[in-house]
Amino acid sequence: MAEFDLAVRGGLVATGCGTTRCDIGVKDGRVVALGERLADAARTVDAGGLLVLPGGVDSHCHIEQPDPDGTVYEETFLTGSRSAFAGGTTSVVCFVPGWKGASLAERVADYEKRAATGMLDYGFHLVIAEATDATIAEIPQFVARGMRSLKVFLTYDDVHLDDRGYLRVLAAARRTGALVTVHCENYDAIKWRTEALLAAGLTEPRYHAWSRPVVVEREATHRAIALAELVDQPIQIFHVSCAEVAEEIARAQWRGLKVWGETCPQYLVLTADDMARTSGRDGSFEGAKFMCSPSPRDAAAQEGLWRVLRQGTLDVVSSDHSGWSFHNDRGKAKHGRDANFRAIPNGVPGVAARLPIMFSEGVSKGRLSLDQFVALTSTNPARLMGLAPRKGVIQVGSDADLAIWDPQKRVTLTNALMQQAIDYTPYEGMEVTGWPVMTVRRGELVMRDGVVTAEPGSGRYLPRAPYDLIRPTGRLPNGFDTAAHAG
Amino acid sequence: MAEFDLAVRGGLVATGCGTTRCDIGVKDGRVVALGERLADAARTVDAGGLLVLPGGVDSHCHIEQPDPDGTVYEETFLTGSRSAFAGGTTSVVCFVPGWKGASLAERVADYEKRAATGMLDYGFHLVIAEATDATIAEIPQFVARGMRSLKVFLTYDDVHLDDRGYLRVLAAARRTGALVTVHCENYDAIKWRTEALLAAGLTEPRYHAWSRPVVVEREATHRAIALAELVDQPIQIFHVSCAEVAEEIARAQWRGLKVWGETCPQYLVLTADDMARTSGRDGSFEGAKFMCSPSPRDAAAQEGLWRVLRQGTLDVVSSDHSGWSFHNDRGKAKHGRDANFRAIPNGVPGVAARLPIMFSEGVSKGRLSLDQFVALTSTNPARLMGLAPRKGVIQVGSDADLAIWDPQKRVTLTNALMQQAIDYTPYEGMEVTGWPVMTVRRGELVMRDGVVTAEPGSGRYLPRAPYDLIRPTGRLPNGFDTAAHAG
Amino acid sequence: MAEFDLAVRGGLVATGCGTTRCDIGVKDGRVVALGERLADAARTVDAGGLLVLPGGVDSHCHIEQPDPDGTVYEETFLTGSRSAFAGGTTSVVCFVPGWKGASLAERVADYEKRAATGMLDYGFHLVIAEATDATIAEIPQFVARGMRSLKVFLTYDDVHLDDRGYLRVLAAARRTGALVTVHCENYDAIKWRTEALLAAGLTEPRYHAWSRPVVVEREATHRAIALAELVDQPIQIFHVSCAEVAEEIARAQWRGLKVWGETCPQYLVLTADDMARTSGRDGSFEGAKFMCSPSPRDAAAQEGLWRVLRQGTLDVVSSDHSGWSFHNDRGKAKHGRDANFRAIPNGVPGVAARLPIMFSEGVSKGRLSLDQFVALTSTNPARLMGLAPRKGVIQVGSDADLAIWDPQKRVTLTNALMQQAIDYTPYEGMEVTGWPVMTVRRGELVMRDGVVTAEPGSGRYLPRAPYDLIRPTGRLPNGFDTAAHAG
Amino acid sequence: MAEFDLAVRGGLVATGCGTTRCDIGVKDGRVVALGERLADAARTVDAGGLLVLPGGVDSHCHIEQPDPDGTVYEETFLTGSRSAFAGGTTSVVCFVPGWKGASLAERVADYEKRAATGMLDYGFHLVIAEATDATIAEIPQFVARGMRSLKVFLTYDDVHLDDRGYLRVLAAARRTGALVTVHCENYDAIKWRTEALLAAGLTEPRYHAWSRPVVVEREATHRAIALAELVDQPIQIFHVSCAEVAEEIARAQWRGLKVWGETCPQYLVLTADDMARTSGRDGSFEGAKFMCSPSPRDAAAQEGLWRVLRQGTLDVVSSDHSGWSFHNDRGKAKHGRDANFRAIPNGVPGVAARLPIMFSEGVSKGRLSLDQFVALTSTNPARLMGLAPRKGVIQVGSDADLAIWDPQKRVTLTNALMQQAIDYTPYEGMEVTGWPVMTVRRGELVMRDGVVTAEPGSGRYLPRAPYDLIRPTGRLPNGFDTAAHAG
Repeated sequence: MAEFDLAVRGGLVATGCGTTRCDIGVKDGRVVALGERLADAARTVDAGGLLVLPGGVDSHCHIEQPDPDGTVYEETFLTGSRSAFAGGTTSVVCFVPGWKGASLAERVADYEKRAATGMLDYGFHLVIAEATDATIAEIPQFVARGMRSLKVFLTYDDVHLDDRGYLRVLAAARRTGALVTVHCENYDAIKWRTEALLAAGLTEPRYHAWSRPVVVEREATHRAIALAELVDQPIQIFHVSCAEVAEEIARAQWRGLKVWGETCPQYLVLTADDMARTSGRDGSFEGAKFMCSPSPRDAAAQEGLWRVLRQGTLDVVSSDHSGWSFHNDRGKAKHGRDANFRAIPNGVPGVAARLPIMFSEGVSKGRLSLDQFVALTSTNPARLMGLAPRKGVIQVGSDADLAIWDPQKRVTLTNALMQQAIDYTPYEGMEVTGWPVMTVRRGELVMRDGVVTAEPGSGRYLPRAPYDLIRPTGRLPNGFDTAAHAG
Repeated sequence: MAEFDLAVRGGLVATGCGTTRCDIGVKDGRVVALGERLADAARTVDAGGLLVLPGGVDSHCHIEQPDPDGTVYEETFLTGSRSAFAGGTTSVVCFVPGWKGASLAERVADYEKRAATGMLDYGFHLVIAEATDATIAEIPQFVARGMRSLKVFLTYDDVHLDDRGYLRVLAAARRTGALVTVHCENYDAIKWRTEALLAAGLTEPRYHAWSRPVVVEREATHRAIALAELVDQPIQIFHVSCAEVAEEIARAQWRGLKVWGETCPQYLVLTADDMARTSGRDGSFEGAKFMCSPSPRDAAAQEGLWRVLRQGTLDVVSSDHSGWSFHNDRGKAKHGRDANFRAIPNGVPGVAARLPIMFSEGVSKGRLSLDQFVALTSTNPARLMGLAPRKGVIQVGSDADLAIWDPQKRVTLTNALMQQAIDYTPYEGMEVTGWPVMTVRRGELVMRDGVVTAEPGSGRYLPRAPYDLIRPTGRLPNGFDTAAHAG
Repeated sequence: MAEFDLAVRGGLVATGCGTTRCDIGVKDGRVVALGERLADAARTVDAGGLLVLPGGVDSHCHIEQPDPDGTVYEETFLTGSRSAFAGGTTSVVCFVPGWKGASLAERVADYEKRAATGMLDYGFHLVIAEATDATIAEIPQFVARGMRSLKVFLTYDDVHLDDRGYLRVLAAARRTGALVTVHCENYDAIKWRTEALLAAGLTEPRYHAWSRPVVVEREATHRAIALAELVDQPIQIFHVSCAEVAEEIARAQWRGLKVWGETCPQYLVLTADDMARTSGRDGSFEGAKFMCSPSPRDAAAQEGLWRVLRQGTLDVVSSDHSGWSFHNDRGKAKHGRDANFRAIPNGVPGVAARLPIMFSEGVSKGRLSLDQFVALTSTNPARLMGLAPRKGVIQVGSDADLAIWDPQKRVTLTNALMQQAIDYTPYEGMEVTGWPVMTVRRGELVMRDGVVTAEPGSGRYLPRAPYDLIRPTGRLPNGFDTAAHAG
Repeated sequence: MAEFDLAVRGGLVATGCGTTRCDIGVKDGRVVALGERLADAARTVDAGGLLVLPGGVDSHCHIEQPDPDGTVYEETFLTGSRSAFAGGTTSVVCFVPGWKGASLAERVADYEKRAATGMLDYGFHLVIAEATDATIAEIPQFVARGMRSLKVFLTYDDVHLDDRGYLRVLAAARRTGALVTVHCENYDAIKWRTEALLAAGLTEPRYHAWSRPVVVEREATHRAIALAELVDQPIQIFHVSCAEVAEEIARAQWRGLKVWGETCPQYLVLTADDMARTSGRDGSFEGAKFMCSPSPRDAAAQEGLWRVLRQGTLDVVSSDHSGWSFHNDRGKAKHGRDANFRAIPNGVPGVAARLPIMFSEGVSKGRLSLDQFVALTSTNPARLMGLAPRKGVIQVGSDADLAIWDPQKRVTLTNALMQQAIDYTPYEGMEVTGWPVMTVRRGELVMRDGVVTAEPGSGRYLPRAPYDLIRPTGRLPNGFDTAAHAG
């Protein structure tokens, strides 16, 4: 009998800690051996001339989220898994949705069912959309079940928390040992400015960017950090759009706070000007395809973000995969044509495009080393989410999640290649160098040359135990632990 | 007939722009001549060997403010004028109070009557305690009548504005040409932390400081600045307690924003430890005498503030004169004994103590030059409030407001010397070097050797016309002026 | 007999501390009275509708400096005085030159004779070009005679000091009570890079800018400040070319150090691109007209400098008047044509152009208030140089130095208007709004409508006594005063 | 025949990228397999319950360096290897010494012979003590032989480079592909201050710290960075003593420069006060044992450094192993007793103490995670020196260099445990938790329970090929590459 279920031979393996040329032996879905010449395996993949990377970990994906009105995000776990595998990603952390009035238990139960239908491995953030006593009381049981991150929004009508609500969530996280992840934009400022723009007749998609300039993101970021400092609770700032915002994170890190920052490909390759694009059929609403929050900025902001990625203040690149089709009934074009930028659903898809864009714009163009690319897209998000060393590295004992990557392959991005439910990609027509030719999930070859073959329902939930990064620093103002005395 | 009503002869005159030895000729309340040897005057003051300073301008004083429940701050314009004159101050900017539901017009009318009973010259800040359409609509007429500053609180139950309210006030100020002055502390954070402290049984006065650590002040300061940047509206940050907060102002100034900062003597000579003082009679509530918001910090914070005053980020020292007696029915001791730090009225008196403390701790101890002292306590506040050159300088055409100052005189501060209605001074027993021996208000000798002689009702309202410092910078995000389109 | 020798009536007087409409009474060259309606005067100037400013104080002027080889800067005290008066400037601080081997006493004696031939009032910086025991020993006597600033160069072949030399000068200044002013560029870096440029055949004037990029100025600025911090000695950084350099000064000021910064019009209105200008006759060497050190930068640097001037880190604008004619035998064109940028004499003239450019680009264009303009060009340099209150303000007791200024007058700058010995102005053809129509020096009308009438030799030396700004801060590393133990 | 020469079984392996429980298979000195249950091996080490770490990489060690006068550092490669193995370190980068006049070729030849006598694997820094044409011309051949780092001193009489010399070395490094490592202290300032201290009679060891306060280190650090920016050459700042200095590195990193920073245990656990220690026998010179440059600072500096290590600006902890015995003829005590702090040899030994101190003070005390400890002491220095992935990780293909570590073992440090030639350790008596119980070098068990068994001469030279971290950024002032045109 073969010692291994699968052997991947001859690749240049990026272990998450440098590269080495070796074979990988897999058994029962896990890496059980790394060696120069491993014994027989039931199945062998020849990776000669290719890179073997830890499967991508996308710690910020919106998939099949139900809304309070019963509609559900178009990207299902089935389509989303296909799309992720097509792009070399094998694990996601997605969001148990939140809205006012519903119990967390119900939403978790519903979402667990949905997530179980896909092929991706998945962890859950819990969206905390209101900080009522009831919700706060529900949190610990789900953290205990491994949903070890609480997502809060400081903006958006239906879900934003005021400062007290945010503080209560920080305190709950501290008491139970969870990370808090934060969407940082100032709610009142955006709303007020949006009203002014609409009053001035500035309704087209590009005014979305005007409605939320950098300063509202910087403000909320500083506030999110300051309140976390009060409570002594680790946080991650989501989707940082420019170096001016990242500077607030850098200052906090310099002071010794546990604050991490994430950015996304859309901030590295899109700009606010994309929202001004027009096309024959869709008229001025073509720009809606590029609309997300925070808004993409400009070329200088992109350059700043690349710099900050190299420098280390931001250590995760996720996709924030999200959004709606352009042409269907609930889609961006429909809303856009009828109304104004406020009515157009936000968010851009990217779970498949993330790795190819980051590899091509990063590694192929010499902005990032291969090690940095792997760290930003797999190792670091796995660590910060408490998934390491199971995910994010190629190491004995890790899940055998692999992206087998051809660094020379040149591809023009199309939505078809994305294999997603959403009917467009904002990266349509972009040329990339470097492409995943096979994806292995827990030892199973789930994608080869774009053909995805995994069994629906084969994805596994990833419970997360407590881990060092979410431990408080121990530095409390006046030594008083508010979280111990306030609900 | 004498050419002048009054001549002040032989003093070393601090004009607000360096010092010179000259005579001052006054007619009809104004300085009409400065000269080496001026002609005859109806009355002559010999200032030989003394300093002649512009009368102090205290741009932050709470006097005779009515509360919604009908009670009125103990310090009346009559007692407050006495106290100010006793301490060398001749002008104040005080606060038309604000609370929810009452019309601005009524409050202005009421407060104008009260202010007219005193001897001090006075300008008005308008407290905007709610940003309803009605209130916003009332603002322009009062700004047009010279109340050219809007005061907002980002904390305190009855008056705090949320971000939208603050934005609306910023916009109203921009449209009408007013300064916005801001009390910067995070409302939710203090309230939530206070509840936790009380829940933990930490109720004594010293826990007031614990309820509002530096981080809540720094957060609100950054937010106040960021939202003002969005609107492009000049603001002044009130009562900065330490260099960590001032650093946010310095960063904004460096970026070219019109942001000014003020501090007060209580942050330069008191610390949070003072709130832990006890005494025989009052028990643990003696500390309530030192309770104000933001809280005094520690010795390092004091040193930092002195440094920042010299360096220039903070350019105004006001008293934030406020508070209640210790022993009377509404006083601090009563509330303190019965309850907890949350119930104790906030604020410390200081309109009389401000100049002697700043002169002694600043000039006599070598921390400030005489020019810096005059600038911080008179010239700069007059300028920022739009009172210059009528107030704050000794210049031809200015009001003849003078503090004739003995730089050598040593005095032990007592509450009797303060001549105020409030029954204690937090500076009791402090030794100072330098003391005002005469005060001249609009050419009239209103204080000599502590004896105040001015006629009740002789104070004048100081309407303020538009001035350069409150003009927007012209830098608007995306070039879009929100204030022009949002109410 | 008239009470005053001269009365200036009806102007809007910028006293150096705000503006007021009043008459100015002058006797024996000094302001003896300011008043609303002054008594009779022997002579009256009607300033109705005009501004009356303190005469400009240019604290950084190179005039009639001899070089070691016997040649002397073209601008003499005679022509320089004419030029200064033409531009509204009445006082300068210029440089007793320094070079290796010559005694300070000889150079002072020689330079005193030269300076005495002009009409301008003048103070002296002492250039310390070598820090030998002999030179260090000579310093105190000249400081005692009022030459209360030591100028050092950190670059230039003949005069630069190494760090030890600079430290010795700092120590000498500390012991004797003088300011140290510093030209901050890294000597070795410029020299080495210049050799590389010439080796690469890049010899035209515009490569002057390439030879000394911002980083060499920033380096030397940080170093100059750090060594001054070691010794605890106040310094002024000369001719800051951009905000990146000013930031080092701002950081030092924030830490509480006594460090001041100056800039010059050439950094506010010229750029490195000007050095690439060509013209028919002079070919590619036209650019030499704009060559000075540090080099002008670019439009972004200009904008940054205006911002920093408003913000306050830089508080003096001087001309650094310097340089050589373009066409004569020693001139820029000659050197340029024959050789390369290294051979072309450095420096641009500007003593006449300084005030009109700063008024026009600053006040008329809304970048500076009138108060800021007066402070930057007269009051602040007078204070920092220890000339206040004799110079830099219009105050009783001050010298009656006045620039009577028509704020509406539009003028096209030509070299003829500059009335200088140097045969070109880098500002040729520039349009300005605002112009000095009369200049008064110590009560004497020395310029009217461009006609200069003062008597050669009527300029006076300005000895400077110790003053507060040059007093050490008292903060010494380990409390050890190196200057007290090291020569 | 056994598949492996050695198997290490059952340990918790810190691969350099997280930890995993697995066996390690070694053949021919390299790791050839990692697996859950590896096949037979000729020899087996049972690591059950222990940590298996990559052998320590100490990238800054002074061993057996000859001085120009013929004396040689006491620590030989033989004793140094013993000491390193005793402390879990298996590789060092040490210094081909430099002095004026000697050819690089001679010194390399001599030093190669010495290094070959030890058991440690070793790379070489080349000390460039003068930047003559001859020396510059010699550099490329030795870089080509894998000595891919040039060490320069900005201080010390015999070796310091002036700025031009430093620039030439930077340029040579850029042209040949080497890292430059820099000792940053201002030469002139220290020398001048030292003279002043001695003149003041302050001669005891503790005045060593006074002679070189933080500001001289900060100055040289800023300068070293600025000149490297001019040339666009990556550098590492050696032995950063406090956060104030690290801040200059952080600012450079934020701007996108390739600047790295190192610190050492002596800055994390010693203070300047240690130099004031006295003892019965040695009198006041006991303090000499703690003398190194830069000087240890104070408790606040220690705390700041720990913070900066966690935050990431500093990413390497080396020992800077150096110095002389206390009691022998050339030792510290002798020099100290006879003379003054300037005469006492600098440097402290630490190659054995480095890992135990960092583990105990870092990991055991909760300041660092195990991953951070491994990164700082092994993985990062290996990477920055271009030794990875051969050294610094436990990965297939890496050298089998292992420290088998008992995390619970409590040890009191004594000099005997250090097994070094130097007769004292500055850490005498310090209690540590965590200790290396075995050391494996290229598959050979070279230390067990303190007994070192490797064959003299078995150490190998580590040539270093070009690697990504030392590639220039491509950002050149004006786009001009000085290094291409200047020697």
